[in-house]
Amino acid sequence: MHSSLGSGEKMTERIRGVLAPVVTPFKADLSPDRKRFIAHCKWLLSQNCGLAVFGTNSEANSLSLEERLNLLDELVAAGVDPSRMMPGTGCCSIMETVKLTKQAVEHDCAGVLMLPPFYYKDVSEDGLYRYFSEVVQRVGDARLKIYLYHIPPVAVVGITTGLVERLLAAYPNAIAGMKDSSGDWNNTQTFLDVFAGTARAARTFDVFVGSESFLLANMRNGGVGTISATANVNPAAIHELYLECIRSQTSDIQYQKSDIEHQTSKMERQQADLNTVRGVFSSRKFPSMIAALKQAIAIYADDPAWRTVRPPLVELTPEQAKTLAAELKAIGFRWGAGKSE
Amino acid sequence: MHSSLGSGEKMTERIRGVLAPVVTPFKADLSPDRKRFIAHCKWLLSQNCGLAVFGTNSEANSLSLEERLNLLDELVAAGVDPSRMMPGTGCCSIMETVKLTKQAVEHDCAGVLMLPPFYYKDVSEDGLYRYFSEVVQRVGDARLKIYLYHIPPVAVVGITTGLVERLLAAYPNAIAGMKDSSGDWNNTQTFLDVFAGTARAARTFDVFVGSESFLLANMRNGGVGTISATANVNPAAIHELYLECIRSQTSDIQYQKSDIEHQTSKMERQQADLNTVRGVFSSRKFPSMIAALKQAIAIYADDPAWRTVRPPLVELTPEQAKTLAAELKAIGFRWGAGKSE
Repeated sequence: MHSSLGSGEKMTERIRGVLAPVVTPFKADLSPDRKRFIAHCKWLLSQNCGLAVFGTNSEANSLSLEERLNLLDELVAAGVDPSRMMPGTGCCSIMETVKLTKQAVEHDCAGVLMLPPFYYKDVSEDGLYRYFSEVVQRVGDARLKIYLYHIPPVAVVGITTGLVERLLAAYPNAIAGMKDSSGDWNNTQTFLDVFAGTARAARTFDVFVGSESFLLANMRNGGVGTISATANVNPAAIHELYLECIRSQTSDIQYQKSDIEHQTSKMERQQADLNTVRGVFSSRKFPSMIAALKQAIAIYADDPAWRTVRPPLVELTPEQAKTLAAELKAIGFRWGAGKSE
Repeated sequence: MHSSLGSGEKMTERIRGVLAPVVTPFKADLSPDRKRFIAHCKWLLSQNCGLAVFGTNSEANSLSLEERLNLLDELVAAGVDPSRMMPGTGCCSIMETVKLTKQAVEHDCAGVLMLPPFYYKDVSEDGLYRYFSEVVQRVGDARLKIYLYHIPPVAVVGITTGLVERLLAAYPNAIAGMKDSSGDWNNTQTFLDVFAGTARAARTFDVFVGSESFLLANMRNGGVGTISATANVNPAAIHELYLECIRSQTSDIQYQKSDIEHQTSKMERQQADLNTVRGVFSSRKFPSMIAALKQAIAIYADDPAWRTVRPPLVELTPEQAKTLAAELKAIGFRWGAGKSE
């Protein structure tokens, strides 16, 4: 399945491209809706979209440890390919992080997306190093691939270059990369400059951006893809840009200048279209992007049950739902495939 | 045991006075040290100090759900009085909050100290209301007494007067009060003005301050006590000020002006002494107050095992430990009983 990404990199089997932090459907009693969850995961895979289950947009921290363990087991039991999964496993408690990470490794998941412990603020780099170091040692499995999750707007506690430097020196195989959800391109650029690219090919550090709005920039600067909320509703269009980026990197050097210009302008147009779709979902008019994404699935799948979020999040009001539907229609949004030309 | 507080309020059986967010000892392998934990709880009780186990200073969010459930069961099994306990039960996941809260209620704990769900930031008052409302309904027990936990420097998500107003209107018995760890006296004063005191005696809302440095001010303005980290090492002196405040409230009105002045200056001296002790522990020289408190127990109990904290926290360095010991000696700190005159 990796080879379908066209990167041709057989050196590593690491997951790349577009992943969705899979939104988690709930029943009316707020329990996880396994059936809809599995169906949504299968649909995402059919759109070349990897599964970052249990991310921020999955309301993972609103799930209990037990619910997370059960959902992953059930997903695998339903035949969903673990090599396309990067479950979120970072908890405040090191013991729970280890438990979830072990489970993911035992299922042969492609990797795990790991939040830093996020309750205490102003913790030292030394304390965070000790935390991740303990996790690697306690999991104790050569298959472990950790993607550090930097999302300061939510977790507040972040991932620094100094921390990554120390972790990579100690655990060059276990520390596989990061997801940067800072929303700050300068930060992503810094991590790419320091850790990505051929200079450190022996210990590749794969940078995913947390929003497809930075996908083109990320791919041009040595990144490997995006793990983005809107991939839940717009996977094919995001994957199209990713593929175009890969094609541009592997283009025959005999290409004419005009061909390159054509390709560049195509990618920039694709990026602009993705941004338009994202702009609708990230509007401050809606209580949260998560609720807006679920509302959109409810609309396009004609399945109102999808609206449900767990407290402290709230659903869109009927009025907000109408606004969302109207705005998506206005930009010519096509389910799963972006906006029409 | 409540009557020993001398408040004479038989109308309610609510817990008041001084409580410690009990620090949690760990073994070398980072597992909870049940023996030391139970012994420390029993010592605190002997100092008239209630047990806010599983608070911020207990590293509760660094514990797994299972560890918290087991520790509380073991504490009760060891004969520690649940009517003197206010376990922290607020998690990011509503299901886990309900589970911990049910356990505390079933043990007949005096109340529970409940953080708001703290992963998502910028959540709406409506979402938080829905969260706490669901918890009350799912626990479904008339014995439930929730103390809302406001600690914006750590949880970021906070408790607003609007939220309390709505919750009190819906659940006047279940919503018993709050702990204000904002560190902002103006905020405490606002909650006291709006919710505490005789005007609303029919539905008392009990305000604890999160630091004994506000204890005198809190007691003078209708508050009921403090739940403070330093009570782990200085419980008797903090309780002395609390008792003096209660005495001043119930003083015979025939007291002479000079007696009242004497009492006032005594309380202010006590408060100043408490502040001196707290100043040592809260110094930015140490990596965290939690680590400094554990180091102090290690010193005074001559038990180095007490030093251990869980990542992401770090212990004091040997140099920092010497500084702490020297500073406590310099102020004439007496174990459990504040500074000497």
